[in-house]
Amino acid sequence: MTERQLSLNAFIYPSGHHEAAWRHPQSRPDRIYDVTYYQEIGRTAEAAKLDAVFFADGPALRTNVAHNAAPGLEPITLLTAIAAATTHLGLIATASTTYYEPYNLARLFSSLDHISGGRAGWNIVTTGTDLAAANFGLDRHPDHAERYARAREFVDAVVALWDSWEDDAILLDQAAGRYADPDKIHRIDFEGEYLKVRGPFNAARTPQGYPVLVQAGASNEGRSFAGRYAEAIFTAHQRLTDAQAFYADIKAKAREFGRDPEQVKILPGISPFIGDTEADAKRLEREFNELTVPEYGLAQLESIAGKSLRHLALDELVPVEEFDGAGDVTDNARSRLQVVAGIVRRDRPTLRGLLHRLAGARGHRVFAGTPEQVADTIEEWFRNGAADGFNVMPPYYPGGLEVFTSTVVPILQERGLFRTEYTGTTLRDHFGLARPESRFARRPALAR
Amino acid sequence: MTERQLSLNAFIYPSGHHEAAWRHPQSRPDRIYDVTYYQEIGRTAEAAKLDAVFFADGPALRTNVAHNAAPGLEPITLLTAIAAATTHLGLIATASTTYYEPYNLARLFSSLDHISGGRAGWNIVTTGTDLAAANFGLDRHPDHAERYARAREFVDAVVALWDSWEDDAILLDQAAGRYADPDKIHRIDFEGEYLKVRGPFNAARTPQGYPVLVQAGASNEGRSFAGRYAEAIFTAHQRLTDAQAFYADIKAKAREFGRDPEQVKILPGISPFIGDTEADAKRLEREFNELTVPEYGLAQLESIAGKSLRHLALDELVPVEEFDGAGDVTDNARSRLQVVAGIVRRDRPTLRGLLHRLAGARGHRVFAGTPEQVADTIEEWFRNGAADGFNVMPPYYPGGLEVFTSTVVPILQERGLFRTEYTGTTLRDHFGLARPESRFARRPALAR
Repeated sequence: MTERQLSLNAFIYPSGHHEAAWRHPQSRPDRIYDVTYYQEIGRTAEAAKLDAVFFADGPALRTNVAHNAAPGLEPITLLTAIAAATTHLGLIATASTTYYEPYNLARLFSSLDHISGGRAGWNIVTTGTDLAAANFGLDRHPDHAERYARAREFVDAVVALWDSWEDDAILLDQAAGRYADPDKIHRIDFEGEYLKVRGPFNAARTPQGYPVLVQAGASNEGRSFAGRYAEAIFTAHQRLTDAQAFYADIKAKAREFGRDPEQVKILPGISPFIGDTEADAKRLEREFNELTVPEYGLAQLESIAGKSLRHLALDELVPVEEFDGAGDVTDNARSRLQVVAGIVRRDRPTLRGLLHRLAGARGHRVFAGTPEQVADTIEEWFRNGAADGFNVMPPYYPGGLEVFTSTVVPILQERGLFRTEYTGTTLRDHFGLARPESRFARRPALAR
Repeated sequence: MTERQLSLNAFIYPSGHHEAAWRHPQSRPDRIYDVTYYQEIGRTAEAAKLDAVFFADGPALRTNVAHNAAPGLEPITLLTAIAAATTHLGLIATASTTYYEPYNLARLFSSLDHISGGRAGWNIVTTGTDLAAANFGLDRHPDHAERYARAREFVDAVVALWDSWEDDAILLDQAAGRYADPDKIHRIDFEGEYLKVRGPFNAARTPQGYPVLVQAGASNEGRSFAGRYAEAIFTAHQRLTDAQAFYADIKAKAREFGRDPEQVKILPGISPFIGDTEADAKRLEREFNELTVPEYGLAQLESIAGKSLRHLALDELVPVEEFDGAGDVTDNARSRLQVVAGIVRRDRPTLRGLLHRLAGARGHRVFAGTPEQVADTIEEWFRNGAADGFNVMPPYYPGGLEVFTSTVVPILQERGLFRTEYTGTTLRDHFGLARPESRFARRPALAR
């Protein structure tokens, strides 16, 4: 491969990323509990040679289901079903370090990596909502610093479990009655402030060594975590300059941790409305915006702002001061609040206009244009130090992915920026990431 | 259906239930991390119209992998992959109430039930080993009574989560912008001594209402738990009379809890060696027994006995006193210890003979005979108040299941004891269990 290649994931949200997608005739909210719906989406992504599909997740009902369809299927099981319907496509699930136990989560992802032949990725999140906390016996969620401290221990413990069996631990010597070499299967004896895990793990090392570690936190703590652990980073930026600054910062942080910055892939979100003409694309975006329920968007915005906004009128300009960092915001809302404040300051929208902007993809970048224009902006960000690829967030499913793969992907392929065939079989192969060696390999055996 | 029908599950253990199976040319230990191996087994079970496949589980490496193959894939993900390769077969996974969080486990099983179109079952275990405890930050596992107290709360909370969305909560009114009726989605506000879970759940009710509740504990506490919650019970008995007593006891306990005893299915394990003649079958059993590694079996037996047995000689009779309930045994080993003590007292085996007896299926009943003889013993137990069906535990996979389904199942079908076609699509349909109504149905809405 002569030229640096883009990575492209399809970020799946049941009816689509636009909050009103479920009301549009092009979406299929009637199928969101139907596994064949997701298997078809997976096959569409694989036919276009995308790197992976990706699901967000949280252990609570966070969507106001009065006015929007919430995801209902658990991502790891769902990706296992997609694995069974595909052969090359990467499979990335979000899971929480705050509300899981490392041994249980290590097993689920190990199993997904074995079952899929090396296609699993774990999007590591710390889950900062009181709604989730209340489902796990807590009155409030642990604070940002505590969550990240636990997350560091959690990832260390889980990766150690995945390393627990060396790659050549299984002997399979039927004649001698020796199944495995106990000297190559290690206890991990992990002891941190929050977690204590002895091991050994109860499964062999996976095809990828271990699943790809993905991360999405944008706070200082999150960036530092990303620089240390993440092999791929999902991020939200509205503007090229912001994306460039983030890109440079993360690559620098990776270097600080002694890592090769090439082994850290940065993938901003983009939610494309695609039309034959730019006017068609914008008309389509308007069609979706007109289906939004203001009550729904307003409640979402209030949760970002951490305060009531009922005093604002829908068709009047939003005062800049409303989003100047005030309000009782939770840590994880801060970066989204900054995005909102930036839009209000720069573009001076009405409240309705602001709600429409946010309806697109929850703060991710919405772009309406022709296939050429979408390919142009992808190429611009890719060539100018803002992205190693993209998390594509179709505003509606399944059609929004189909139009992207059938119109934008061929242009990127013609430009030599995106593969026309898979050149490997694992997610690490697609992302260009090395297969890690077990930390226990070639060391003297530990006590079992 | 005129006659009462048997239920038959295939209990899957990677290479087979005999501890030396992995050494035998008829097993495939090289495929135990290969999902297509299990999908083929699932299709074999489904072609024979079996009720379900079933996996045991525990969050620790308990097998001595020096001399035996341990299961490596996590059962819920594995069953999801089998779901994708089958259409009717029930899918039962074991999972621990001691080492999981209710919200996480509820999601995994809900997802499996949705993905499979209503074929999920949960085998509820409390996991009583220090090996598991050490993987979750504990020095010792919680005692029997505490584990069962937590298990009761756990099942109550999980079932309430599964009931959280009433069956008709989703409106899908695209025109009016109303996705779901919030009055039909309930917080559960569960507060126990061990667990506190608020809800609401983040998924719609499943095709079966909720997965079938399965249980396998044989202690007094376990039986009481079974009588209260279990819809199917896996059990181990060597003799008809013991099985009859257990059967009568559980059905009585179900009645005490105000339940219909017909809605509690009792399924003993049976591990059949099948041959054209009885001599062939016994020769096959001997072939497997001769492949056992005495060191492996002795360590297993010591863990049941809770003491060293190195003073015994392999080819001398085991003294009856050795297993008279002495020793530092854990609670969960007690019922297995009773099985061993019974064998020693009744049959006076040598140590080698005892190890061979236990090598078959870890205390479950091993039966060597012709297809007719296997069908006869199944019919005898079924017609004489000892079983509603069986958990079939092939000594070796995949061949041991294939010979059972191709030779024994047709005899049972000819006798009118077993279905020749599925008459429903869910595991509840196969077991003849009613679909439960949500506890919240038709009650006034609770606060959200």
